[in-house]
Amino acid sequence: MTTRIPVYDDLVAASKVLGKMAHRTPVLTSLTMNRRLDAQVFFKCENLQRIGAFKFRGGYNAVANLSAEQRKAGVVAFSSGNHAQAIALASKLLGVAATIVMPHDAPEAKVAATRGYGARIVSYDRQTEDREQIAQSLVQEQGLTLIPPYDHPDVIAGQGTAVKEFLEDVGPLDALFIPMGGGGLLSGSLLAAQALSPDCAVYGVEPLAGNDGQQSFRKGEIVHIAPPNSIADGALAQGLGKLTFPIIKQYARDILTVTDEQLVEAMRFFATRMKIVVEPTGCLGAAAAFNEAVPVKGQRIGVLLSGGNVDLSAYAGFLQA
Amino acid sequence: MTTRIPVYDDLVAASKVLGKMAHRTPVLTSLTMNRRLDAQVFFKCENLQRIGAFKFRGGYNAVANLSAEQRKAGVVAFSSGNHAQAIALASKLLGVAATIVMPHDAPEAKVAATRGYGARIVSYDRQTEDREQIAQSLVQEQGLTLIPPYDHPDVIAGQGTAVKEFLEDVGPLDALFIPMGGGGLLSGSLLAAQALSPDCAVYGVEPLAGNDGQQSFRKGEIVHIAPPNSIADGALAQGLGKLTFPIIKQYARDILTVTDEQLVEAMRFFATRMKIVVEPTGCLGAAAAFNEAVPVKGQRIGVLLSGGNVDLSAYAGFLQA
Repeated sequence: MTTRIPVYDDLVAASKVLGKMAHRTPVLTSLTMNRRLDAQVFFKCENLQRIGAFKFRGGYNAVANLSAEQRKAGVVAFSSGNHAQAIALASKLLGVAATIVMPHDAPEAKVAATRGYGARIVSYDRQTEDREQIAQSLVQEQGLTLIPPYDHPDVIAGQGTAVKEFLEDVGPLDALFIPMGGGGLLSGSLLAAQALSPDCAVYGVEPLAGNDGQQSFRKGEIVHIAPPNSIADGALAQGLGKLTFPIIKQYARDILTVTDEQLVEAMRFFATRMKIVVEPTGCLGAAAAFNEAVPVKGQRIGVLLSGGNVDLSAYAGFLQA
Repeated sequence: MTTRIPVYDDLVAASKVLGKMAHRTPVLTSLTMNRRLDAQVFFKCENLQRIGAFKFRGGYNAVANLSAEQRKAGVVAFSSGNHAQAIALASKLLGVAATIVMPHDAPEAKVAATRGYGARIVSYDRQTEDREQIAQSLVQEQGLTLIPPYDHPDVIAGQGTAVKEFLEDVGPLDALFIPMGGGGLLSGSLLAAQALSPDCAVYGVEPLAGNDGQQSFRKGEIVHIAPPNSIADGALAQGLGKLTFPIIKQYARDILTVTDEQLVEAMRFFATRMKIVVEPTGCLGAAAAFNEAVPVKGQRIGVLLSGGNVDLSAYAGFLQA
């Protein structure tokens, strides 16, 4: 596996690899929010992407860039979330065998969706087994290639194609708000913005309870934290990546945080006013913008909605909160 | 008020009048549904239209086509639903004073949204007062122009622009499933399909409990029914219109019905798999297609999602059902 830090040319290449396989997701607007913030707000809807999240972009780009030999041997990923489905669907589309290592108590809907894309599921016990070890043994014993969820140049480049499209569609922006976990989406977005809207202030947004990224950004080195507790279950990474952090350190304007209450409020706004389902993690950028974590008045701002995969009963609970 | 039955040229004119005022709403697809039905299904997302429903199209077209004198005097509409918001927003955008007659117990969110668009609200008591009489007295005493919710050529032509766009974007279809209340959307859709995809079988879909349209279609004359009871609150019209019925009678392939349970099932599908909020009425066409009310196997079919305005706690209840 290469550990080269990707550049904008890799995003251009990823766009070609993705071609029509990924949806060019719509950009929506809301007069109500424009008025409330006295700004012009554009929402890039990656919740409407295949598998319901931007992760399809990076997953597909990574699997597509494997050598013929690697593709023949198959891939493995460990994830209980959107990355698993991304690798499963990408592999199916590319005719590659995929193995997903998932906890045996993962939500039935997610297991079914992943299996529905034709992946083999290897389950493990969260209490007694280590998913990385299981994945590594599959790599060693069966020659599978491990596709990590964010710290990989092809994954980062693939994720960056969302903001590349976004800026191509709406033109330069004053500010961009991007959900952040391990930093794959944010670092890809930074490369896109640097090339297409270099004056744009790009903010990564993470849950207040899991602000390792903010700590890392301010300290200038990767800070690891204990497993955080937030409804933003796609942003619970305990530390940024070796490839994502240098890009974030160099190009991000700042890392902002939001509370779970602000995420719920944003989710309700999207359901009532914009008629879209956005998962808690997908609301991170929006919640920072809506609560004016930085001034946005009079600006043209972009908000990336990263995903919409939320358990139905949990979602109903958030709406009724 | 003209009572001329509109033709396709009126849709072409309405498209020009609407210009960029209405969103060209996205067309989404779902691999899961394609597989389930063994068909290629396209969803036209009018839930993502301004005010959250296709009604903006007809409302705007009707207000825009008034004479200078009529616009100066102002307009009136009676509705507790999407038509009220459509007329309120259209009027605001066109600099016309709008009065909306609403029941005093209308949901606070709807009243607030309508007022937010700058409309004057006249409330009435459902038990003791008649909204049509109130509206008519405003017409006579204040010279306002009444914009009816469906039985008006400019309203029909405006609604028809949704399917016009849809067919322009995806090409000819084998079948189209359209929600139906008073028939404004369906009759406009029929005119669009007749011009752009003449072999397409176009179905109107209404709630089983309020099947006046089906009865009328089969009998060949307008049948009126008692107020029906369904969660599809935008399709509770008690009879088709004098302008909408002749178009439906001539061009519709059939009128289909679905149950409330099928609407809930469709709502849940849209939330979980497609990440969009669709109101019960908006799911009518989808529910007919999903349950194969007519055979769709091997076909290219279009489903119009007419709106997404549903009270948040009611919606949460549907998702948890």
